[in-house]
Amino acid sequence: MSKHSVDYVLRLKLQHRIGQLARVAQCIAEQGALVGEIATVADSEELTIRDFTVETESDVIFDRLKNAVGKLDGVKLLEVIDPVADAHVGGKIRVVAERPVDQVRALRHVYTPGVARIVRRLQKTPSDAWSLTGIGRTVGVFSNGTRVLGLGDTGTLASLPVMEGKALLYAQLAGLNAFPLVLDAKTPEKFVEVVMAVAPSVGGIHLEDIKAPDCFAIEDELSRRLKKPVMHDDQHGTATATLAAVINACDRVGKDPRELRVGQIGLGAAGSAIALLLLHFRVRDVLVHDLSPAAVARATMAGAASVNIEHIMRECDVVIAATGKEGLIPARLVRKGQIIFALSNPKPEISPWDALDAGAAIASDGASINNALAFPGLFMGALHARARSITKGMLVAAAEQIASHAEKDALLPSVLNKKMHEAVASDVQAEAQASGLADTAELS
Amino acid sequence: MSKHSVDYVLRLKLQHRIGQLARVAQCIAEQGALVGEIATVADSEELTIRDFTVETESDVIFDRLKNAVGKLDGVKLLEVIDPVADAHVGGKIRVVAERPVDQVRALRHVYTPGVARIVRRLQKTPSDAWSLTGIGRTVGVFSNGTRVLGLGDTGTLASLPVMEGKALLYAQLAGLNAFPLVLDAKTPEKFVEVVMAVAPSVGGIHLEDIKAPDCFAIEDELSRRLKKPVMHDDQHGTATATLAAVINACDRVGKDPRELRVGQIGLGAAGSAIALLLLHFRVRDVLVHDLSPAAVARATMAGAASVNIEHIMRECDVVIAATGKEGLIPARLVRKGQIIFALSNPKPEISPWDALDAGAAIASDGASINNALAFPGLFMGALHARARSITKGMLVAAAEQIASHAEKDALLPSVLNKKMHEAVASDVQAEAQASGLADTAELS
Repeated sequence: MSKHSVDYVLRLKLQHRIGQLARVAQCIAEQGALVGEIATVADSEELTIRDFTVETESDVIFDRLKNAVGKLDGVKLLEVIDPVADAHVGGKIRVVAERPVDQVRALRHVYTPGVARIVRRLQKTPSDAWSLTGIGRTVGVFSNGTRVLGLGDTGTLASLPVMEGKALLYAQLAGLNAFPLVLDAKTPEKFVEVVMAVAPSVGGIHLEDIKAPDCFAIEDELSRRLKKPVMHDDQHGTATATLAAVINACDRVGKDPRELRVGQIGLGAAGSAIALLLLHFRVRDVLVHDLSPAAVARATMAGAASVNIEHIMRECDVVIAATGKEGLIPARLVRKGQIIFALSNPKPEISPWDALDAGAAIASDGASINNALAFPGLFMGALHARARSITKGMLVAAAEQIASHAEKDALLPSVLNKKMHEAVASDVQAEAQASGLADTAELS
Repeated sequence: MSKHSVDYVLRLKLQHRIGQLARVAQCIAEQGALVGEIATVADSEELTIRDFTVETESDVIFDRLKNAVGKLDGVKLLEVIDPVADAHVGGKIRVVAERPVDQVRALRHVYTPGVARIVRRLQKTPSDAWSLTGIGRTVGVFSNGTRVLGLGDTGTLASLPVMEGKALLYAQLAGLNAFPLVLDAKTPEKFVEVVMAVAPSVGGIHLEDIKAPDCFAIEDELSRRLKKPVMHDDQHGTATATLAAVINACDRVGKDPRELRVGQIGLGAAGSAIALLLLHFRVRDVLVHDLSPAAVARATMAGAASVNIEHIMRECDVVIAATGKEGLIPARLVRKGQIIFALSNPKPEISPWDALDAGAAIASDGASINNALAFPGLFMGALHARARSITKGMLVAAAEQIASHAEKDALLPSVLNKKMHEAVASDVQAEAQASGLADTAELS
């Protein structure tokens, strides 16, 4: 089953007779779904109630499955449980008091009249806000919902669950406060204006799910005007995780990535950032392909060479695709021993199975190369360093640390490995210090 | 000591001899400070180290005190501990995962690929965001720092500790998520534009510490354009807490507030809202005074009568002042049996002591009539009801419930009384339902 499928649970009442479980399993298989866990909820001499976890590629398949199971003889569908919805009920983050206020004296410290003392201190010495407010550990996660996951322009409100998910991971993996802020701001000008106005509230700006080319203009303008870190996750989070995968894949086949020729097919937000980061990392050559002359110009100006897809497939040791076009890469173009990362979600340019069948040494897809490996540690490190920006050097430091945490035989570590995020933060902070960026952030 | 003073702790090393403690206490008294707790940190035969908690009215007095104590014979000032700063270190709120993600399967539910299922649901049915995101329990606390506490225009960043304090109280007292958002937006037009753009992220809009008259234009425009609750705390939070105090004070002297004449001196944000709420509550008469013709016109259009201060002091059973002018009300104008609330912070128009000395039956100041009594329950109730606005009827319902929770002999209940906030929320929700406002909020 694909990494893009997610589960539902069917609660079924079954007559207790020989072959009943097999019939249900057979029905699920016929509808093209996988059976996960089967749990017994209740049973008696005549009946059992069981929860079947099923994985399907789409809700259409699931609806067919649900109908088919419900029509089986001796089977009654009691309930469909959606564990994904259950994980979202009431939202995914909670704001709590850092130190709960339990008596009037403590209230007078955090609220009036005590808080006036802190306000006056910040008026005199704005940098005291680093220690006396949460700003130094706070990230604004901003989106306008114009390019959400693989779903396109979903509108502002519908993108909120994605931003809450980012905030949850910031909280759990990096101990940072992140506010999910979805903006009714469709043009780059409006988006920049709103973020500039909100920026005094946060220590760093995480941009998410903004369509290209708007995302480039927005990130450039905010980085130019703000003296605090700004990062577009779809570009730099993805590029960092991809570079980590390239480093480990090359290690696996016993090659030095800096002696390799890498091809980047597709120069949207992710592809452009990957190409630029690979150039910064000094791989031998970066060959690129995209239908947009503007996108190609951005990459060639930085040192990449523009070629066609066949050329990339023929010449490159590592091929990375981020085009959004399912099946773009035919198996016949795969070269023996190639490393192939087809990143488009939910359907890659070539499935890892097909690539490996065609002779690739290593193949992976976008579900495995997860930008959540990168952003928590990147912002933790940038904020700890009080750096005014996140540089390519910091992205490379993060990628190398991510790569080093992969378990034996795995291309990349688990996103849930908190020690990895702390190590990333530490190296990002060290890189900021080494390059003179530490303590350059300004709060107002 | 005034309710506006806050404490510091002096850690002193004292020679162990007769009369030493008395000398320190005498020195503190001579500098005009109060001694609070005295704790022994360490002692030996010759020396003791003690923490003296002292309360002063201002940092100037404290600096003098610090110097004087340090010069005493046999006394060494080891350290000044600021418990207010300690209560602010790292900020006052923390964002945490509502349900921590402990395994890859759970990660796939809250992040990609699972979250895409929720995004698609919200695209189809935006109102599902009430249950599947945190928006229904999220308040944006917005300020531009143009009128912070009694300190005036402190700038944007310096106002952040106040907004964090509001967020802390929302979290602890109402179980709501509040994001402290301080905006670089000095004009009403800019402020409205930014809040409109951020509004899809939150269920309600709390406005704070915005100068008059800008705050009126901002609140009016946001209330008109947004179909979700908008409240300016300095107006409506204060008005609600004040009405609660009026209700209880009248009860204490055995009178019906609806048969009384009430005077409102000062028609800034707080005073205007108090006058309008008293009119809505149908007290017999509301007499007002302000130097601004525009402010007076707003109140008289709603039914108040414009008079001078002497007239108010002579005619009114209840006098409320919110002018920012220390000592504005001379004791000789106080009428026997009057109820006087002088709300200006940090220095009231007449001190409660002076008012009582001059014959007032009940007197209080702004430190006692705290808008934190109102806003947590108001927003909890409005959000639970999914009301599109917070009406005067909801403010009255809140005020009555606040009043009913005061302990015997107290004018108002403790802000930290969580049951009170829950009861306020419940009555606010009931009022929204009774007036047809329930389920009128719109998320996009």
